[in-house]
Amino acid sequence: MNNRPAPGHLKLRRMSIDTWRDHICFLHRDCTAYPAPDYLGPNRIDISSGAKKIRARVNVVDDDQFVKHDEIGLSKRAFDELGLLEGTEVTIERATPPDSLLVLRNKVAGNELELGQMREVIRDIVDYRYTEREIVAFLVAASKELTLSEIQSLTQARAEYAHHFTWSRNMVVDKHSMGGVPGSRISMIVIPIVAAHGFWIPKTSSRAITSAAGTADAMECVAEVDLAPEALHKVVETAGGCIAWNGRLSHSPIDDVMNTITRPLGIDSTKLAVTSILSKKVAAGSSHVVVDIPYGTRTKVANLAQAQDLGNLFEAVGRGVGLTVVAVPTDASRPIGHGIGPALEVRDVWAVLQNHADAPPDLREKALHFAGIILDWDPNVENGRERARVLLENGAALNRMERIVDLQGRKEHPIGPGSLAHNVLANQSGQVTGIDCYRVADIARRSGAPMDKGAGIDFLAPVGTQVKAGEPLYRILANIETDLRLAVGAAERDNGIEIS
Amino acid sequence: MNNRPAPGHLKLRRMSIDTWRDHICFLHRDCTAYPAPDYLGPNRIDISSGAKKIRARVNVVDDDQFVKHDEIGLSKRAFDELGLLEGTEVTIERATPPDSLLVLRNKVAGNELELGQMREVIRDIVDYRYTEREIVAFLVAASKELTLSEIQSLTQARAEYAHHFTWSRNMVVDKHSMGGVPGSRISMIVIPIVAAHGFWIPKTSSRAITSAAGTADAMECVAEVDLAPEALHKVVETAGGCIAWNGRLSHSPIDDVMNTITRPLGIDSTKLAVTSILSKKVAAGSSHVVVDIPYGTRTKVANLAQAQDLGNLFEAVGRGVGLTVVAVPTDASRPIGHGIGPALEVRDVWAVLQNHADAPPDLREKALHFAGIILDWDPNVENGRERARVLLENGAALNRMERIVDLQGRKEHPIGPGSLAHNVLANQSGQVTGIDCYRVADIARRSGAPMDKGAGIDFLAPVGTQVKAGEPLYRILANIETDLRLAVGAAERDNGIEIS
Repeated sequence: MNNRPAPGHLKLRRMSIDTWRDHICFLHRDCTAYPAPDYLGPNRIDISSGAKKIRARVNVVDDDQFVKHDEIGLSKRAFDELGLLEGTEVTIERATPPDSLLVLRNKVAGNELELGQMREVIRDIVDYRYTEREIVAFLVAASKELTLSEIQSLTQARAEYAHHFTWSRNMVVDKHSMGGVPGSRISMIVIPIVAAHGFWIPKTSSRAITSAAGTADAMECVAEVDLAPEALHKVVETAGGCIAWNGRLSHSPIDDVMNTITRPLGIDSTKLAVTSILSKKVAAGSSHVVVDIPYGTRTKVANLAQAQDLGNLFEAVGRGVGLTVVAVPTDASRPIGHGIGPALEVRDVWAVLQNHADAPPDLREKALHFAGIILDWDPNVENGRERARVLLENGAALNRMERIVDLQGRKEHPIGPGSLAHNVLANQSGQVTGIDCYRVADIARRSGAPMDKGAGIDFLAPVGTQVKAGEPLYRILANIETDLRLAVGAAERDNGIEIS
Repeated sequence: MNNRPAPGHLKLRRMSIDTWRDHICFLHRDCTAYPAPDYLGPNRIDISSGAKKIRARVNVVDDDQFVKHDEIGLSKRAFDELGLLEGTEVTIERATPPDSLLVLRNKVAGNELELGQMREVIRDIVDYRYTEREIVAFLVAASKELTLSEIQSLTQARAEYAHHFTWSRNMVVDKHSMGGVPGSRISMIVIPIVAAHGFWIPKTSSRAITSAAGTADAMECVAEVDLAPEALHKVVETAGGCIAWNGRLSHSPIDDVMNTITRPLGIDSTKLAVTSILSKKVAAGSSHVVVDIPYGTRTKVANLAQAQDLGNLFEAVGRGVGLTVVAVPTDASRPIGHGIGPALEVRDVWAVLQNHADAPPDLREKALHFAGIILDWDPNVENGRERARVLLENGAALNRMERIVDLQGRKEHPIGPGSLAHNVLANQSGQVTGIDCYRVADIARRSGAPMDKGAGIDFLAPVGTQVKAGEPLYRILANIETDLRLAVGAAERDNGIEIS
């Protein structure tokens, strides 16, 4: 009778070691199953029992207290993901390189990939079969050389590995913005207009990443936004539209990887962003998408020519994957609406929907423009912009919005603007000739937005206003004293308003 | 009195964990000095005491048995490299990104770098300040877009971080081959001719990586090749030349990194190879270099046009860094000399040096051609090729070679061809019209070359020979029965000889 376990069989042990995203396994140097040091390095091994399997890199241990000769230790996250009990017998074997490695090398060598090849690469990225160095090499190579046909293939392949929605209609519309303009909360007006017309528009949005508010942050002041796919489906089938958070719905491991790698390395992610956005639209079951591309010196898209190029790319990639895409460059030189910050933007949105006399005209105008482009897709509509105006002015859009809020889950206590306020005053007399979007968004974030939904900036002197020294330019709102103080301090150093 | 150590001070502990090249430190989750989980992830921390410092990634531990609250554990190699005793108080701080990270991002974004910027990047790579993902991104970006001026800067910068030789002469020559032709051991003839003429030619060579013999492997059959820099210096000042192993002399951490990353990822390393080769020539103190660029369907350089392009690149980069470079495309369609494998190639070399009637004419001819190009750099020489022939035929080259062997350290028992032999016979009658270099090198390696220096292939029927079925094509030599059997088996499947 031999006490050694069968070769390749080891008992699973949970190590109280957190190795972040790295899956690490710990083998004793004199491991009974395998010559452990052979596995040291960038290569990985597959650890499995039945259908459960995980891939990990090897650390070699010389201390029986850490792992015994017949054990394999797994770092915490890897252990949890494998989902087996301690002591389970597992098999280990050298991980074979992903089948698509040759495809990846092909891309690095500068060759064009076809749809089938893109599929292979994306599948292996999604399944965590690549090492980080391989993914980095692919992304850098792809950022340098990606033909239109490859961008289309990549979009298609990414769509296939995302959560899919199917609708009982062929025509499903959507609207996306590349972001960068504070206060440009037009989705909350466009969706109810378009839904009131009779189109289906299942809109999901992000929370703010670097801005003072995302559409999901704003909508969350009045309604539930974290909907499961089935709930979202129901809202859209009943009301024709929704305004939900995309977090739970279109989370993609590829976006994860791409974001953590491309940003710090400064990899040009324009083409990758197009594939990310349009693949989600395909997966969401959309057939028609309008894309808002704000351009201006402080945004990602510096000028109109670049915006047009990007727009052409969006439209061409859309054609390749069966989407009708219309891209619209828009001016990003100044904020839109009166306020920035979730609750202040919601206030502006309702002012437009309620046809208030003092509703921000720029927000109303931009929303009608985009709603009009969407309604023009209806062959029975002669003038989309005009149809949108009617639906807004006759209260149909407001009614539809209230219905969507009810269906998503109305907040018992909607969140309004903050209770603390400080007026920022003009240092000199003259005309307001510019507002630095980047600067005022920064001040709004210091005031607590978007975490504090009531925080933000309420503009009192839009571009074009004549002001006298000492008159208020804008009001900083907050709910927490220290946040207000931080924002006021920042505004005192540079309030972001240009007077001349 | 507070028992907590001062913030940032922890006691060093050696962990019996081997994490290969990764420097990993282990902090307790409730570490007294720092909120350890903040450091999880790709970011790294600097661990230091006095002038000793090491950079490592953090794993977080929840078990007091691994590390205590006031301790920091280091993986074995990191501990050894830091070189401090267990229990030493060390300071930790968040590692700042390398200064050159912006430069690297610039390259990834497709911008051209200047010499000063290349220097910064190379210095930070050499000092292990970059993460692997950063190096991969740089290499992929560089393989896609590297202008001539950048290749020159990169060559210059790499030269500055290599071991430097200085000579008491301004003119120092060298010869380099891109490899790929079995048996092309011309360095062992060129160096003694050139040294006999009076030039200084401090030649260092590699051992075989994928071939059956490198110059260092062959020279090692008769002389010591692993010379310290001082010893090499002395040999060259006495004999005008040397044939040494480059392993100890021009080891570069950049080559390390580049090789382990570029090969598996299939990154086009042509430009990087030029910078690697010429930077070593600059560091070795050379002023004039001739580069042999074999081309053929089975080598890295597929055809004459590619060889000429690569040659032009070598020459242009040379001009930029103050080197006179002459690149010479040569035919790689068939082996050179009678035998392949270290001892068999040495036999051919001595046959040429001794002016034997049956010395391989192709080896003699190629050696004279390259020696001639080098001797043409002497303004007092009218015809370099002719001068080379004289030095070879009058025995000056042989004498010089024997002197170099003596100075480097003559082997008491020079290694000759192997004692086991097997003749590979022609399957059909006809003319030998081709020899597949790749195939015969593979068979020679199976016979034990280059580890077994006597192993290899001795050709009995060069291209052009008329053979009858059953007549010998070549003899496989070996010293170990199993090796011979393996090689014979391979030759039986495909002997690499084309008869028609």
